[in-house]
Amino acid sequence: MNDKSCSAAGAVNEARLWQRMMDMAQYGATSIGGVNRAAFSREDIEARKTLIAWAGEFGFDTATDAIGNLYIRRAGAEADAAPVVTGSHLDSQPKGGKFDGAYGVVGGFEVLEAVERAGIATRRPIEVVAWSNEEGGRFQPGCMGSAIFAGDLTLDEALKASDPEGISIVDALRQTLESTSDISRRDIPFPMAGYIEAHIEQGPRLENDGRTIGVVSGVQGLTWYRVEVFGEEAHAGTAPLGGRKDALKSAVSMVRGLEELMHDESDTVRFTIGRFECGPGAPSTVPSHVLFTVDFRHPDLSTFLDLGGKIREVCEANARGCDVTVSRTIYSEPVVFDTSVGDLIRKCSQALDLPHMDMVSGAGHDAMHIAALCPSGMIFVPCEKGLSHNEAENATAADLAAGTQVLAASLVDLADR
Amino acid sequence: MNDKSCSAAGAVNEARLWQRMMDMAQYGATSIGGVNRAAFSREDIEARKTLIAWAGEFGFDTATDAIGNLYIRRAGAEADAAPVVTGSHLDSQPKGGKFDGAYGVVGGFEVLEAVERAGIATRRPIEVVAWSNEEGGRFQPGCMGSAIFAGDLTLDEALKASDPEGISIVDALRQTLESTSDISRRDIPFPMAGYIEAHIEQGPRLENDGRTIGVVSGVQGLTWYRVEVFGEEAHAGTAPLGGRKDALKSAVSMVRGLEELMHDESDTVRFTIGRFECGPGAPSTVPSHVLFTVDFRHPDLSTFLDLGGKIREVCEANARGCDVTVSRTIYSEPVVFDTSVGDLIRKCSQALDLPHMDMVSGAGHDAMHIAALCPSGMIFVPCEKGLSHNEAENATAADLAAGTQVLAASLVDLADR
Repeated sequence: MNDKSCSAAGAVNEARLWQRMMDMAQYGATSIGGVNRAAFSREDIEARKTLIAWAGEFGFDTATDAIGNLYIRRAGAEADAAPVVTGSHLDSQPKGGKFDGAYGVVGGFEVLEAVERAGIATRRPIEVVAWSNEEGGRFQPGCMGSAIFAGDLTLDEALKASDPEGISIVDALRQTLESTSDISRRDIPFPMAGYIEAHIEQGPRLENDGRTIGVVSGVQGLTWYRVEVFGEEAHAGTAPLGGRKDALKSAVSMVRGLEELMHDESDTVRFTIGRFECGPGAPSTVPSHVLFTVDFRHPDLSTFLDLGGKIREVCEANARGCDVTVSRTIYSEPVVFDTSVGDLIRKCSQALDLPHMDMVSGAGHDAMHIAALCPSGMIFVPCEKGLSHNEAENATAADLAAGTQVLAASLVDLADR
Repeated sequence: MNDKSCSAAGAVNEARLWQRMMDMAQYGATSIGGVNRAAFSREDIEARKTLIAWAGEFGFDTATDAIGNLYIRRAGAEADAAPVVTGSHLDSQPKGGKFDGAYGVVGGFEVLEAVERAGIATRRPIEVVAWSNEEGGRFQPGCMGSAIFAGDLTLDEALKASDPEGISIVDALRQTLESTSDISRRDIPFPMAGYIEAHIEQGPRLENDGRTIGVVSGVQGLTWYRVEVFGEEAHAGTAPLGGRKDALKSAVSMVRGLEELMHDESDTVRFTIGRFECGPGAPSTVPSHVLFTVDFRHPDLSTFLDLGGKIREVCEANARGCDVTVSRTIYSEPVVFDTSVGDLIRKCSQALDLPHMDMVSGAGHDAMHIAALCPSGMIFVPCEKGLSHNEAENATAADLAAGTQVLAASLVDLADR
C-alpha cells in the first residue's frame, strides 16, 4: 500500500462517519430503529438532498441522470480522466435497516471528505454514486439504476412500473428529479476506471469467523421460479383420498423433492421457499390451488445451471395428478469480479492489519451490473447476527470505519493508475 | 313394509317436491345457481317464514325454541305421544348449494303433505325440524341447534359467538325469533320416539355405484387440529441453510409425516390439510411462521383414537429446530346409529325396489347429536359428482323423490310403533 493510500485510510474519521450514518437514518426512520425509505419517495428525496448538501460544503460537483442515479465528484488532476467510482443505494426495504445501501453511499462520501481534508490529489476523479431503486420494494425490478446504467435494462422498460398504490414510476421519478433540478444532468453510461461498493455482509460469516473485512470475489447466481399447482376442491369428510386432486399435498411433495435436489453437504446452495399460498383455505375443503416461489442461488456456474435446470422437472414429477405450471421470473448467472480489484482490497486490508476473508456475496448488488463495464469489486463489513432486510439490522462504528479505510486506500490506489 | 307405509311412499309427489326445493332456493340465491343463506340472516328468516306459511296451508302446528330450531307438527292419534321427527337445516355455506340441508327439511315437509293428502292417520305425531345453524359458517360452532337440543352445547356458551362483522349471535337470534313471534315456544329437549334425517350424500359413492339410497349406519369421527410453526426470518441469499429455522420446510416435513401416518390402503381414512398459511411471504425471506389445519376423520373408534392421538407427536418430531404448537379445536368421536332404524330404511328401500347400499357418513350432521336421545338414522341420496359445499351442487328430482318415499315409509312405520 503506497503512502497516499495510507494517508487516505488514516484520514477516515469513525465518529464523523457514524454521525452521518445516523443523520441519514432519520429519513424514513421507523419507531423501532429501522428505515422505510422507498425509491423515489419523499424520504428518498430528503436523503438525496442531504447528500447533495454535504457535497456542497466541499464544493464537490453533483449530477444526476435520466433514472435519477446521483453522482458526487471530487475532481482529479486530469479533469477528463474516467473516474474511479464507489457507492451503493439510499432506498430501503419497507422494513429495512439503517445500513443496507446507505453505508456504501455514506462510507463513499466519507472517503471523499477524508481525501479532501487530507489534501490528497489523485490523477482520476473519485466519485460516489447513489444508484436509484436497488431494493425494488416499491417499483420492480430492483437494481434499476445500475441495470439501466449498464444497459441490462432499458429506461423505457423500467418506466412501465407502478407501485402497489398505482403511482407510476414516471411520476415518482419526475418529482424526484424536479426536487434536485439545480444539479447537472449526465448521459449514461459514461466510462469508469473502476468500481468498488462497500456494503454490510447481510449474512453471519464475518461475525462468526471474527473477521472485519470481506473481500468479495463475486455474486452468486440467482434464479426465481413461480410454481402454481391446480387441483380440485372436494369435501374433506367424504371425498376418498384416492380420487382427490389435492393441490396442497402435491405442492408439499414438490417442496420435498426440491429439498432432495438441493441437498448439499457443503451448505453452499441457497434454496428458499419464501412465499407459499394455498386456497381456498377452509379446513374442511381439499385445496384446489397453491402458489409458491423458489429462490435458488449458487456461486458456481455449472452447479447453478445444473440444479436450476432441474427445478421444473422435479415439480412436474411430484404433481400427483394435479396440473402444474412452472415459470422462471428472475435469472441472473453468477458474477465473478475482476481479481485485480479483489487483490487490491485484500492487500489494503493486510496493510491496515484488518482480519479479512474472501467470500462470495449471497445477495444481489448494484456491483453485479457494473462489473461488466469496468474492473469492480466489493468490500463487506460485519452486521450483527447477519440480520438484514430487518429493522433490527445493526453494525458497529468501528467495523464501518474499518471498511471505509480499506475503501479509501483502494480507491486512491485505483485513482492514480 | 305395511300398507300405510306403502301408501305414504306412493303419495310423495316428485314435481311438488322439486318445486318446493326450487322455491326455497330463492332465499340467498347466488348468480351462478348456488345459495348463500347464513344462519339467522335475512335470507334464513325468509326461508323460515316460507316453511311456516306452507305449514299454515295444512293447519300444521308450528313452534320454535330458545335457539330458533323450528318445528312443524302433523298431529297423531295420540296427541301427547312422543313424536317421530325428521328434518335437517335451512342455513347454507357462504358458497353453498340448493340441496345441502334444505332437502332434509323440504323432503320432510313433503312427507307431512303426502301423509296428510293421503289421509293417513298415525299413532304418534310426525314432525319436521329445521335445526338452527348447522353449517357454522357465520357463527361457530356448527350443528348449534341440534347440539343445544341434545345438551352437547349450552345455550349460554353458544350465545357468546359473533360473526366476522362483529354482529352478536344474541342480536341475530333475537331478530330471527321476533320475525316468527306468532308461533309457540317450546322447552327443549322434549322426548322423540325416533329421528331420521334425509340428506344428499356430499360424496360420490352412490353415483359411482349406481345406487339411489344410502342407508347410513353412522357418522365417522372427526377431529381438527390447528398447528402453528414458529421459525426465524432470514435472508434467502445469505443465511446458510444449516443454521436456518425455516417454518415452511418444517411444516412441509410435518405434512409429509402426517401423510405417512395416515397412509391407508383401504382408503377409509379422511385426512385433509385445508388451510395452510405462510408468512411473511416474501420470495427472498425465509418464512418465520406457518399455520395449518388438520382435518382427520374415521368411522372406527379405535383407529380414530390411535391415529388422532399421534398427530401431535408427528408434528413435534418434524419440527426441525422450529417451535411448534398443536391444539385440538374440534373433536367428535364416531357415531353409530341404532341398527333398528337402519334396518327399517333398508327394508323400505327394498320394498320400493330402490337400489341401496349401507354407508357411513363422511360429513357431520345434526343426526349425530340426536342419536344419543332416540333411535336415529339417515337416508342419503346421490348428488352430482359428489359435489357439495359448492354452488354447482346438484341432484335429480327423481333421486330426491325416491329418498323422500323411503323417508315417508320409514316415518309412518315408526309413528305407529
